Amino acid sequence: MKKAIVLGCGLVGSAIVRDLAADEDFVVTAADSAEKSLEAVSNVPGVNRIQRDLGNSALVQDLVSDFDVVLGALPSRLGLATLRAVIESGKPYADISFMNDDPLQLNDLARAKGVTAVVDCGVAPGLANMIIGHCSAELDEVERAEYLVGGLPKPRYWPYQYRATFSPFDVIEEYLRPARMVEDGRVVVKPALSDPELITFPKVGTLEAFNTDGLRSLIKTVPAKNMKEKTLRYPGHRDLMCVLRDTGFLGKERIEVNGTSVVPLDVTAKLLFPMWTRPPGEPEFTLLRVLVEGSSDGQKRRYTYDLYDEYDPIKDMTSMARTTGFPCAIVARRLVDGSLRMPGIQPPEMLGKNEGML
Amino acid sequence: MKKAIVLGCGLVGSAIVRDLAADEDFVVTAADSAEKSLEAVSNVPGVNRIQRDLGNSALVQDLVSDFDVVLGALPSRLGLATLRAVIESGKPYADISFMNDDPLQLNDLARAKGVTAVVDCGVAPGLANMIIGHCSAELDEVERAEYLVGGLPKPRYWPYQYRATFSPFDVIEEYLRPARMVEDGRVVVKPALSDPELITFPKVGTLEAFNTDGLRSLIKTVPAKNMKEKTLRYPGHRDLMCVLRDTGFLGKERIEVNGTSVVPLDVTAKLLFPMWTRPPGEPEFTLLRVLVEGSSDGQKRRYTYDLYDEYDPIKDMTSMARTTGFPCAIVARRLVDGSLRMPGIQPPEMLGKNEGML
Repeated sequence: MKKAIVLGCGLVGSAIVRDLAADEDFVVTAADSAEKSLEAVSNVPGVNRIQRDLGNSALVQDLVSDFDVVLGALPSRLGLATLRAVIESGKPYADISFMNDDPLQLNDLARAKGVTAVVDCGVAPGLANMIIGHCSAELDEVERAEYLVGGLPKPRYWPYQYRATFSPFDVIEEYLRPARMVEDGRVVVKPALSDPELITFPKVGTLEAFNTDGLRSLIKTVPAKNMKEKTLRYPGHRDLMCVLRDTGFLGKERIEVNGTSVVPLDVTAKLLFPMWTRPPGEPEFTLLRVLVEGSSDGQKRRYTYDLYDEYDPIKDMTSMARTTGFPCAIVARRLVDGSLRMPGIQPPEMLGKNEGML
Repeated sequence: MKKAIVLGCGLVGSAIVRDLAADEDFVVTAADSAEKSLEAVSNVPGVNRIQRDLGNSALVQDLVSDFDVVLGALPSRLGLATLRAVIESGKPYADISFMNDDPLQLNDLARAKGVTAVVDCGVAPGLANMIIGHCSAELDEVERAEYLVGGLPKPRYWPYQYRATFSPFDVIEEYLRPARMVEDGRVVVKPALSDPELITFPKVGTLEAFNTDGLRSLIKTVPAKNMKEKTLRYPGHRDLMCVLRDTGFLGKERIEVNGTSVVPLDVTAKLLFPMWTRPPGEPEFTLLRVLVEGSSDGQKRRYTYDLYDEYDPIKDMTSMARTTGFPCAIVARRLVDGSLRMPGIQPPEMLGKNEGML
């Protein structure tokens, strides 16, 4: 029996806990700062629950030292400090805590400690990176690597036709942060929400794809001539977000309004996010398409992977939680069974490049 | 020579001043609370300028007592008080100051004083009312009376494709106030912005018409079986305003945002109105279509009136100022030449019903 601890028991963390707890090889502990979050797994047999301040790195380092493997599903602001604490503890780590900072800054520390830490280990980033890493490794030249990803509600309510299945502030961030991509071998930056195109998917229908800044480590690790990430939404959503952005409703700078100082985005969040809140039980799905093109042995090759997953009403788990949490749990299994040992900070494409990982 | 005083020297007031000043029968005085507004007519030959607090009714009553006719082009909040002051002075009045209050409440006072006061005397309300009053008087039964009206910029800038040629707060008010109309003989109320329809006009192209609350006095004065007013905008504008409204951005109730209390509409006004501000010299136009249908002497009849006017770059006068100000100036001429004497508060349709007025 291997001992696993899951740091953070939110939507994704609780999905990871459920998945690992159903595995007879694991005994699972869920840790969270909030008692309320831990309640989400109170009915999962055999799971230990620990309420601890996960914002305190020293506490985290101490906490994880008893376990064989650590899994992270924390808010982005805690991502880097927790990664450092886990490395210091010497434990292998599978993490889906999105962080703005570059986790590779801890690569030397992880190597020195002999720790394998897989970051961005969800669906996209995550599974998409593994696939791109895997396919690229099969090619002599990578002409094109791209992925399209979106989590969407099945009912389309006017006007936004959207529910945030992760932090709505992070969604807005995706709509604001300039998108880095590779065109003809050069890294270029385009505005978020740019290059909209309609794409029709079987079963789902027509969605709109637009540029967002999701490539992260892939820009450095995969030598593709053209590479981009696009986000998928129902047609119409992007237009409205462009209007809100360009009118200033997503502004982060304070403005004066009748003698009061206010941040427009705060007002928008207050008004908009209730409309983006998924009612319990509402059906939703996650869609990921990965495309890799290139040549090997003088032959042109194209790889296409489609992932479609839906809300699980029995376990009350969103597809976003499932598709993000399961890759993380799978990597954790590999970390403890000894089949994955690559000391350092490893973005998922490095696993994909490894024989036998995919 | 007749002495006319124009109260309010804003966009419309200054157009009225210019029009009357070019008339050799008139000597014109422009009055405004702001010196800056009066500068707009400083280059018009023969115009006297008086800076006076027009928010003070006693001052207004005293001010107008020296004149043969009074014309009003004031902000809506001053409309009713000024109307009362002018009636008390015993002077005839042609007014385009939009007021939320029902001016007919001063009808008895106006009759007692022998004062003819024509209110809502612009384009719509105004000219539209005159035409509907005129056509209705020719019919035994009025099946349908409606008008479509809009003032629009010629260049269509994404996303709103709109400039406010009068107070943008009044525009927002039009998008919020439930629209009263007549359907099958009964007064019904629909949400503002409802019943959108695309209508194509020669020269202009395709516009979108939607319900707004513009009928005002017509609901009481014209016995049409069906009656409505619609506002015209470029297609797309209405959708965005519906989104802003239904997301809460046009809300007038304070909300708490991170410990600060703010009115959403104030924030929206701060962000949105700069995009609705017409740059000096930008070409614009005003479009009015009036439709009246019914029967007389057992014959079905339909009357259609189209008005199309454009920005005058020579005099730097918008079509909105021209089409609103000129009817008011014309009525003032009738008030002083003796051809219009109908003591009481007269909405323009009452003039249209009069033989020889149209």
